[in-house]
Amino acid sequence: MITEQIALVSRPKGFPTLNNFKFEDIELPDIQADQVLLKGWYYSVDPYMRGRMNDTKSYSPPFQVNQPIEGGVIASVVESKSGHFKPGDVVLGMLPWRKDIIASEKDIHQVDIKIVPAGYYLGILGMTGLTAYFGIMHIGKPKATDTVVISGAAGAVGIVAGQIAKIQGCRVIGITGSDEKVKTLIEEFGFDGAINYKTEIDIQKAVAALCPNGVDIYFDNVGGEISDAVINNLNFYARVVLCGQISLYNTIEAPMGPRIQPMLLTRSVLMQGFIVSNFQSQFPEGISQLGKWVKAGKLRFTETIIHGFDQLPTALLELFKGKNTGKMIVEA
Amino acid sequence: MITEQIALVSRPKGFPTLNNFKFEDIELPDIQADQVLLKGWYYSVDPYMRGRMNDTKSYSPPFQVNQPIEGGVIASVVESKSGHFKPGDVVLGMLPWRKDIIASEKDIHQVDIKIVPAGYYLGILGMTGLTAYFGIMHIGKPKATDTVVISGAAGAVGIVAGQIAKIQGCRVIGITGSDEKVKTLIEEFGFDGAINYKTEIDIQKAVAALCPNGVDIYFDNVGGEISDAVINNLNFYARVVLCGQISLYNTIEAPMGPRIQPMLLTRSVLMQGFIVSNFQSQFPEGISQLGKWVKAGKLRFTETIIHGFDQLPTALLELFKGKNTGKMIVEA
Repeated sequence: MITEQIALVSRPKGFPTLNNFKFEDIELPDIQADQVLLKGWYYSVDPYMRGRMNDTKSYSPPFQVNQPIEGGVIASVVESKSGHFKPGDVVLGMLPWRKDIIASEKDIHQVDIKIVPAGYYLGILGMTGLTAYFGIMHIGKPKATDTVVISGAAGAVGIVAGQIAKIQGCRVIGITGSDEKVKTLIEEFGFDGAINYKTEIDIQKAVAALCPNGVDIYFDNVGGEISDAVINNLNFYARVVLCGQISLYNTIEAPMGPRIQPMLLTRSVLMQGFIVSNFQSQFPEGISQLGKWVKAGKLRFTETIIHGFDQLPTALLELFKGKNTGKMIVEA
Repeated sequence: MITEQIALVSRPKGFPTLNNFKFEDIELPDIQADQVLLKGWYYSVDPYMRGRMNDTKSYSPPFQVNQPIEGGVIASVVESKSGHFKPGDVVLGMLPWRKDIIASEKDIHQVDIKIVPAGYYLGILGMTGLTAYFGIMHIGKPKATDTVVISGAAGAVGIVAGQIAKIQGCRVIGITGSDEKVKTLIEEFGFDGAINYKTEIDIQKAVAALCPNGVDIYFDNVGGEISDAVINNLNFYARVVLCGQISLYNTIEAPMGPRIQPMLLTRSVLMQGFIVSNFQSQFPEGISQLGKWVKAGKLRFTETIIHGFDQLPTALLELFKGKNTGKMIVEA
């Protein structure tokens, strides 16, 4: 059969454009033993994808030029030569950006859409929620007296991380990019305060004003000058959870900034880079805890759902520009 | 009685000079109950003292202007109104740079100079050895297959840290500031390789060449461009032990450099600043283990001993210039 795919046709230098992607029709073969034919339903759009567009050593292997982009996809089984899946099953996997997808049974697993909507498995109970969970709980190790600052706070991971820190009893301050997002964080997600970094003249002072006892945990999705401002407010024994550096993903040259090691040294700070798969063996713990909080109404979960498979590259570019609130998903 | 002290008379901007110090005679009162009169014997000279000359928040409180410098001192008891000490006892404490010192019994503790020479208690079994021990063992957590790079490798802490890593079975590479020190590290202290950063044109390549499997632990005493070069060679899950930043202690402005968070993030690196007192509750473990290694001949310990109380400020300035090999001590 013929299907459509979205391939990476060139590696972006700096900010990606639509020209880095190409829509093309390809011929799919018949499925073999242990394979299934899937209809793509929800496609996850994530900041880490920028890194995979480069040809450099990182936590995920680079996308290949002239091959389809790959990411978290929820799909339904159309045809099966696997003993584990039947038509109508809904599955999750790291799959190519194609409308119709052939997958091996070992690369997918079934999700139960009677418990929560299918999209949740790309978000609050998927990589997004788990990233927030392990970052805050296993690296940040919050105490109820801690003050937590989150950059990229209205992003998919940030908004969950903030709520988890609130559940732990912490004071939680968000940094985000619009007055509307500031309002949303405080009024809808229970943040104790938030800063619009685009209009705030002195972010360091603004953080100090909202964190009168200093900063104990900094959950960083952003990097760059915003992080400089937060790091100057860190307390002794603070933990910096390095979850993302989205402000730097589109830079070509290694960006320069103030050296942070003297501050980390003199205040006995821990800084830990991580990716959620470091905690793979503990995923069941994370999914179970997140599921309990979701059912208890303690975790609100915002999605930005864009409609249409053909919108995938645009959605990814908008993600880098901060157009989303919460997890961004494209529904085919 | 009259004694001589060395006071800080002005805070240095940038590199300290002898003009920041003043020798002066002061009158000591008679000792009171629970106090002892001490004769200073060995005075510890340490990199962290530079930080205390500034009036900024750090792990130790700043020295006060017109007050004596304070540091680790080994002294003998001359007169005692304490039930715990008698004349002739040798004690260790954080004490002022005075020839004769009055101390409260709670601020000193006795050391046994029959087991090891008195000076060892300022070095291999004191803060120096313990800093190396906890940095390598508790933060670095070495495995026998790890490659360990140590900057400031011929310094007091570095030379012990390297030997501890060797005891753990690691490949150990030192970075230091002269060909003579390179030779000493390899031939006398069992390092697998060493780099003279003053003559090496491309430190990053030199590290890569000596660490064909990448760097798993970076024990950093130095900071700055040397650290940039090592950090670019870090493996996934590497640990950076931030023990000192001596290259930056004498800078006035916050120094700039490449932002390191993207590297720490994409390789899931841990960076931990620390000071030995963070591990105070585990000191007995550290002293016991270090003592065993010293007695088994597994830890060689180099001291630079300068003679004469009046040499203390000069010794401190020379320390900042890298004139020492191993722990620097002034014998009164």
